[in-house]
Amino acid sequence: MNVTVHGRIRHHRTVTFDRAHNAVLLIEQRLLPHEFKIIATRDFRETAAAIRDMIVRGAGAIGATAAYGLAQGALAFRGRDLQKFHRHIDAVYHALKDARPTAVDPVNAMKGVRAAMFAGETVGERQKLALAAAEEFANEDVAHCKAIGRRGARLIHNGMRILTHCNAGWLAFVDVGTATAPMYAAQAQGKKFHVFCDETRPRSQGATLTAWELAQQKISHQIIADNAAGHLMQRGEIDLVIVGSDRTLGRTGEVTNKIGTYTKAVLAARHGIPFYVAIPLSTIDWKLKRGFDIPIEERHENEVLGAWGVESSPKSKAQSPKSPKRAYVRVANPASGARNPGFDVTPPDLITGIITPAGIFKPKELWLRRRELDFGVDADCPAKLALASSAKQN
Amino acid sequence: MNVTVHGRIRHHRTVTFDRAHNAVLLIEQRLLPHEFKIIATRDFRETAAAIRDMIVRGAGAIGATAAYGLAQGALAFRGRDLQKFHRHIDAVYHALKDARPTAVDPVNAMKGVRAAMFAGETVGERQKLALAAAEEFANEDVAHCKAIGRRGARLIHNGMRILTHCNAGWLAFVDVGTATAPMYAAQAQGKKFHVFCDETRPRSQGATLTAWELAQQKISHQIIADNAAGHLMQRGEIDLVIVGSDRTLGRTGEVTNKIGTYTKAVLAARHGIPFYVAIPLSTIDWKLKRGFDIPIEERHENEVLGAWGVESSPKSKAQSPKSPKRAYVRVANPASGARNPGFDVTPPDLITGIITPAGIFKPKELWLRRRELDFGVDADCPAKLALASSAKQN
Repeated sequence: MNVTVHGRIRHHRTVTFDRAHNAVLLIEQRLLPHEFKIIATRDFRETAAAIRDMIVRGAGAIGATAAYGLAQGALAFRGRDLQKFHRHIDAVYHALKDARPTAVDPVNAMKGVRAAMFAGETVGERQKLALAAAEEFANEDVAHCKAIGRRGARLIHNGMRILTHCNAGWLAFVDVGTATAPMYAAQAQGKKFHVFCDETRPRSQGATLTAWELAQQKISHQIIADNAAGHLMQRGEIDLVIVGSDRTLGRTGEVTNKIGTYTKAVLAARHGIPFYVAIPLSTIDWKLKRGFDIPIEERHENEVLGAWGVESSPKSKAQSPKSPKRAYVRVANPASGARNPGFDVTPPDLITGIITPAGIFKPKELWLRRRELDFGVDADCPAKLALASSAKQN
Repeated sequence: MNVTVHGRIRHHRTVTFDRAHNAVLLIEQRLLPHEFKIIATRDFRETAAAIRDMIVRGAGAIGATAAYGLAQGALAFRGRDLQKFHRHIDAVYHALKDARPTAVDPVNAMKGVRAAMFAGETVGERQKLALAAAEEFANEDVAHCKAIGRRGARLIHNGMRILTHCNAGWLAFVDVGTATAPMYAAQAQGKKFHVFCDETRPRSQGATLTAWELAQQKISHQIIADNAAGHLMQRGEIDLVIVGSDRTLGRTGEVTNKIGTYTKAVLAARHGIPFYVAIPLSTIDWKLKRGFDIPIEERHENEVLGAWGVESSPKSKAQSPKSPKRAYVRVANPASGARNPGFDVTPPDLITGIITPAGIFKPKELWLRRRELDFGVDADCPAKLALASSAKQN
């Protein structure tokens, strides 16, 4: 999406590849929203480190980064010996996989790249095919998000006030995002609307990343404390809620997402406000039988007990200093501890619809349509199938 | 309540009076939870400044501070001329009233002190009566909170996990507090329970003040992000909610309290968890006919856009440095703004009961019992009447 740097608007993807320098180019997300910087990784080890150190985060974005990292590693190989080449590829694969051991996206993305390579006979051919497959993975991530945007844009009308939680935006994918995709598509259609970004404590992704994205994209928005949405709904100031999801259960329609999502769904239901979840098909879990069994990660208590930001004056209008000094402040009572569950599970009865690249479905519909939606994440080029079938519906 | 300083446990009220030095002694609440310090105001102007500058905050606490400030001003008068004395008292009254123009507690407290003074004939007698009336106001504030504790303690059983929001603790009153009163009373009865303190963004009173109080009082507790309570309720980890209130409508049973309270009430209702509001009778508004008419203060956006704390390492266990350096950090995207409503209104259908010094009532019962509960905040020594009648009930 667009980024304004020194007054110039330019289009950026979260992840791209620089063929001339065999480098993966990444937005350094840890510096956002206070500083915008693109970093280039010089080899697959640096790419793995970028995943591990959270320079890049978000399902689609780390998937594409790993795919590019594998191609980068392949392209760095010198020689013609296929056996040596594949031993090298194995080492690259494991370095990238181990950078975020619990994530499935890098693994799925790299499996696709590896499978594509075998169509070539020489090292040189396989190197080219690896990069082509990585590019294809990234392009399909964008195509999926754009399809979510096309599907979801019809939910947004002129004058609407939309609530979103956390960041399911283009920074979490290669471009466009999921929860934000309908907003960007509606904006492109000339619709005017306003977005409330939940701050999303404790890590404040709404106040930092989503607000930054919307500001770059010139979409009218305001940040609110996580406590405020109930009051705004009660006073009739929110018309629609759109959030993302880390894992949606295909069998039950339950949605796992950032802590606080469930609360917003309960509030929306009380006020009769439509509550939508935007997801790529790859995040549907077709195996798990009930949401209660989803393990909820308990994160470090210091996230709750303090906050990250840049030193500033509480009275002045904020400015971005040239080289902002990031600082962690302890907010809470020093002698107290915290509980810090990272995610929660929203049941299907609170969800109006799930916006996918293949259409908008009721949560319980996912299972009924599993044959067309469950293309299997390990399959070769699954995205095309899903997109092809999606063109007919909705 | 108890405060541990340098390993020694001592009892402190939030507000007391030092006769020897004609000084009001206040806990410097702006330094909490990182530093505990008692300050002494040397004259009524310093006492007014302490109210204005938020050294002391909370309904009962600023009421008592103003009452003591008026007595302090009276005692500082030199001479026997009653006319001059009362011109002086008028100046003191207005200085203290203007320190927090929207608050009703200082005005009600000072009216009581002024009325009591007229029983004396000389300046000297009136000075003594003023201080006696201020002491009585403070003692009655404590007596009311203790009565709330006695009423509410029966709701707390061994092993319970209680959620509270913001700070309606002893720091907001002269001692004991309202939402915390049943907890302190239950603790005194030997009951064991655990408290979850909502962080309460944007001003974090739960993470700072309530957590500090509970830690001093050695009550088991943890801070949670405002986003987390819904998840904990869903997993059966919260048994009871107790909050305070800034204004409760006697006619409708609607409760105004810190932003986010309504959200917790909606969640509690969904999970069948009892939701109680603890209030002194003086915060009941018998005039207003509907909660929608309560003006909701929109506070400065910088509260939402950043956080106050002390500089610290995000990785280490927090420690209280000798002289902690307080800092404001800007968390949010610098180019984004915020909405910051300070309060919300919870309707009576979500409230299990209202814990008052006179008993626990259903929200709608307040109006039916208004003859016994509405003693009129302008009346002379209203507290005694309410407490006397309360002894018979519940």
